[in-house]
Amino acid sequence: MVQTSKNIAIIGSGLVGSLLAIYLKRKGHDITVFDRRPDIRTIEFSGRSINLAMSNRGWRSLRKVGLEESIKEIAIPLDKRAMHVNDKPVYFQKYGKEGEAIWSISRGVLNRKMIDLAEEAGAIFRFNEKVWDIDLPNAKIFTGESEKSEWKEYQYDLIFGCDGAFSRVRHKMQRRSRFDYSQSFIDVGYKELTISPNEDGTHKLDKNSFHIWPRGKFMLIAMPNIDGSFTCTLFLPFEGDVSFENITTKEEAKTFFEDYFPNVRKEIENLTEDFFKNPTSAMVTMKCYPWAYWNKVALVGDSAHAIVPFYGQGMNAGFEDIYELDELMDMYKDDWEVIFDKYQKERKPNADAIAELSYRNFVEMSSKTADPKFLLQKKIEKRFAKKYPDKWIPVYSRVTFSERPYAEALAIGDMQEKIMQEVMSMPEIEANWDSQTVENKILTLLEGH
Amino acid sequence: MVQTSKNIAIIGSGLVGSLLAIYLKRKGHDITVFDRRPDIRTIEFSGRSINLAMSNRGWRSLRKVGLEESIKEIAIPLDKRAMHVNDKPVYFQKYGKEGEAIWSISRGVLNRKMIDLAEEAGAIFRFNEKVWDIDLPNAKIFTGESEKSEWKEYQYDLIFGCDGAFSRVRHKMQRRSRFDYSQSFIDVGYKELTISPNEDGTHKLDKNSFHIWPRGKFMLIAMPNIDGSFTCTLFLPFEGDVSFENITTKEEAKTFFEDYFPNVRKEIENLTEDFFKNPTSAMVTMKCYPWAYWNKVALVGDSAHAIVPFYGQGMNAGFEDIYELDELMDMYKDDWEVIFDKYQKERKPNADAIAELSYRNFVEMSSKTADPKFLLQKKIEKRFAKKYPDKWIPVYSRVTFSERPYAEALAIGDMQEKIMQEVMSMPEIEANWDSQTVENKILTLLEGH
Repeated sequence: MVQTSKNIAIIGSGLVGSLLAIYLKRKGHDITVFDRRPDIRTIEFSGRSINLAMSNRGWRSLRKVGLEESIKEIAIPLDKRAMHVNDKPVYFQKYGKEGEAIWSISRGVLNRKMIDLAEEAGAIFRFNEKVWDIDLPNAKIFTGESEKSEWKEYQYDLIFGCDGAFSRVRHKMQRRSRFDYSQSFIDVGYKELTISPNEDGTHKLDKNSFHIWPRGKFMLIAMPNIDGSFTCTLFLPFEGDVSFENITTKEEAKTFFEDYFPNVRKEIENLTEDFFKNPTSAMVTMKCYPWAYWNKVALVGDSAHAIVPFYGQGMNAGFEDIYELDELMDMYKDDWEVIFDKYQKERKPNADAIAELSYRNFVEMSSKTADPKFLLQKKIEKRFAKKYPDKWIPVYSRVTFSERPYAEALAIGDMQEKIMQEVMSMPEIEANWDSQTVENKILTLLEGH
Repeated sequence: MVQTSKNIAIIGSGLVGSLLAIYLKRKGHDITVFDRRPDIRTIEFSGRSINLAMSNRGWRSLRKVGLEESIKEIAIPLDKRAMHVNDKPVYFQKYGKEGEAIWSISRGVLNRKMIDLAEEAGAIFRFNEKVWDIDLPNAKIFTGESEKSEWKEYQYDLIFGCDGAFSRVRHKMQRRSRFDYSQSFIDVGYKELTISPNEDGTHKLDKNSFHIWPRGKFMLIAMPNIDGSFTCTLFLPFEGDVSFENITTKEEAKTFFEDYFPNVRKEIENLTEDFFKNPTSAMVTMKCYPWAYWNKVALVGDSAHAIVPFYGQGMNAGFEDIYELDELMDMYKDDWEVIFDKYQKERKPNADAIAELSYRNFVEMSSKTADPKFLLQKKIEKRFAKKYPDKWIPVYSRVTFSERPYAEALAIGDMQEKIMQEVMSMPEIEANWDSQTVENKILTLLEGH
C-alpha cells in the first residue's frame, strides 16, 4: 500500500457512511464515524423509511469489498411489478431479461448490518454526538450537547460528510461564496405503512414482486421483508381533493383505503392505525456544487445529491460514489486534492442525471399513466425492444441493470424519446402502431443517431 | 385608519429595509430596524457596490410616499448608453423615447438619505445588533455579540426580513420542510473602481450616459455620481485567460487596463490602485419559496429574490415589492395572513421573471454581442420597433420604463424572440434584412399572436 494512513472522520452512520467506513478501513485508514442519533441497532426504526431496491450499481459496490453475499441473505429479489388495478386481476410486468431483478431490503435491517460490518472492520462509532461546526480548511469538527453548550474539538486529516439530504457538513460549505445549491420539494408526501405476515410467517402477497396500486395522483407500493411482512409506502399529495390534509380522522382514513384500495381490505385496520402512528414525510431534490473543500472535506451520497425515490436509485447512487472514490484512491494514492476534484467532476453530471430521471418518473407516474397516447407509446417501445433487444435498451434497464454512467442513460433516453415523438406523430398511429411501417420508421430514425 | 397599530421589526437597514420602514410608519405602526453593521452614515462605503439605476418602478415606489423629488436631487438621469469600442469613436444608443431615462445613484449616498428619512418618519434604528435566531411562529428575535454569547430576546407582532441575499431570516425559514431554495453563482466576478472628477469638479466623461466598454468575456461600466466622479464596475471571469485569477501584480493590472481600455489611459494609476484596494465580489441568483411564515414573518427584496445586476433592476424589484405590499395592506387591513399570502403569490412569478431576464442579459453580453447573426437580429428588431412603436415595444423598455409586471415583459419578449427566430431563418436574410418582405413577415407573425 502506497497510501499514507490517514485519520479520517465520517459524519453520518447511515448506509453510505458505514459502507465508506468499510472501504476506507480496507485502505488502512483510521476511521471514526459520528452520528447525532443513537445507535440504530439499539432502537426501533423510525417509521418513515421506504424499503430499498438494491440494483446492479449497489451490488457492484458491495462486491468490491466482499459483502455481496452476506447482504443478499437479508434481501429478496423482485423480478417484476405486480400491478393492482381496481376491478381487474393483478397483472405482472417483468423488469428485465431472465435473471434480472432488483432486491428489496429493509433500510433498518441493512443499516444495522452495515454498522456491524464496519465495526468488525475496525471503524469506531460515536453515536449521540452531534457535529455543530466544521473548520473546513483545518479539518476540525466540533461536537456538543447543543449549539450553545461547551463544544469538544477534534482534529482529522480528512472529513467525509455522509450526513444526508440536510447535511451539516454541506451546510457549512454552503456559507462560502460561489457555492451553488438548490433544494426543491414536490407537492406529494409519503407515509410508511405495514402489511404484517401471515400467521405462519409467510408473505400475504407474492413475495418476488414490487407491488403497485396506481391511482393517478396517488399510489400505494409494497415491498417484501424477510420476516414475511411488507413495507408499504403511500404517496399522496399534501393538499387537494384526496390528500394528507383531508384525511384527519380514523374514519376518513378507513374510507380512503376502502374506496381506493379494496384489494387490501383485510389489512385496513392495520393500515389505518399506521396512518396516524407514522409521520408524513416530504421529498426533496437537492443539488449542490462543489462537493469537496480542497483536500480536506468531501460530501458523499445524499449530502451531495438527494433525489426523489421514484427510480429506486438513491442508495445505489451513493454506493456508486464510494466505488468511484475507491477507484480514484487507487489511481492517485495520497493526492487527495486530485482525488476529490476528479471525484466531484466525474460524479456531478451523473448525480444530476439520476435526479432528473427520478423526477421525471414522478411526473410520469402522477400525470401520464392515464394518458392513452403515452400508454400507446410505451406499447410501441416495448414491442420494438422485444424484437430488437440490442437496438433498444429501455432507460429503466440502463439505470437499473447496468453500470454505465447515469448521464449516458439519460442522453440515450432523450434520443429515444425524440424518435418516439416522431413515431407518435405518424398519421393514424393508433391503428398502425404494430405495423411494419412503424417498425421501419424506428429503424431508420435509429440509424440517423 | 382601520388597521391596528403593530409593533414591527425590520431586519436590515439597506435600501429596502429603510423604505419599508417609511411605508410602515405612514400606516401608523411602531418600527424598529435592526442591522448587524454599523450605521452607514458614520462609515466609509464598502468599496464593493455597483451604482444603482433607478427606473420607473423604483420611482413609483418613492412617489407613493412623497420621496421622488428629494431623491432625484441626488440622482443623475442617463438617457443613453455610451459605447466605448476600441479603435472607434464613442457612439451613443438612446435608451428609450424622448424623456425616458434611468437614474444613476450612489448606493451609499442613497442609503444614508433613506435612513435619515426613515428616522425622521419615526423609525428606530438599532445598528451593530446582529440577529442570530428568529422564533418564526412567535415573531421573536434573538440578538447578541456572537452565536454563543448571551442573547437578548425581543417580541414583535410582525417581522420583515430585508437582510439581503444571504438573509438570516430566510436562513431560519429554510430549515423548515417544503421550503424551496436555490442559489446559483455565475463564473464572473466584479470589482468597484473609480474615475475621479476633474479638478473643477466636473465629470470626465459625458455625465448623462451609462458608459460601457464591452470586451466580449469581460467589460467595464461607469456611472456618474453627483460629486463629479464615476463609479466604475469591472466585470471579469474569476478564472481563465483574462481573469481575476491571472491579475495578481500592479504590473499585470496596468497592462490589462492599457491593453483593453486604452481610452481610459489617464485614469490607469487610480484604477490600478483601486483594483488591489477593493475586494472582488461574486454574483448570485437566489430564489426561494414561500416568502412568508403564517401572518408573522415575510421576506422583502433581495432576501426573497436576489438577481444578477445585468438588468439594473435589483433595487427596483425590491421597491416594487413594497409598493405591492402597501396596496395589499390597504385592501386587507389587519388580515396579515391574507396580505402575506397574496403578496408572495403575486410577486413570486415577477421575481422569477426578472431573475431570468437579468441572467439572460449576462449571457447575451458575454457570448452573443460578437455574433453577427445576433447583431443583425437586433438591427431588424430596432428598425421594426422604430417604424411600428405600438406593435413592438422592446423588452428593455417594458422592464425599465413601464410598471406592468415583469412576468408579462418576459412572456412578450419570448413571443418576440420566437417571431425573430422565424425571421432569421428566412432565405438570404443578411441581404434582405431591411426589405418590405421582412417587415410584412413580422407583421403577419404578430397577427398570429
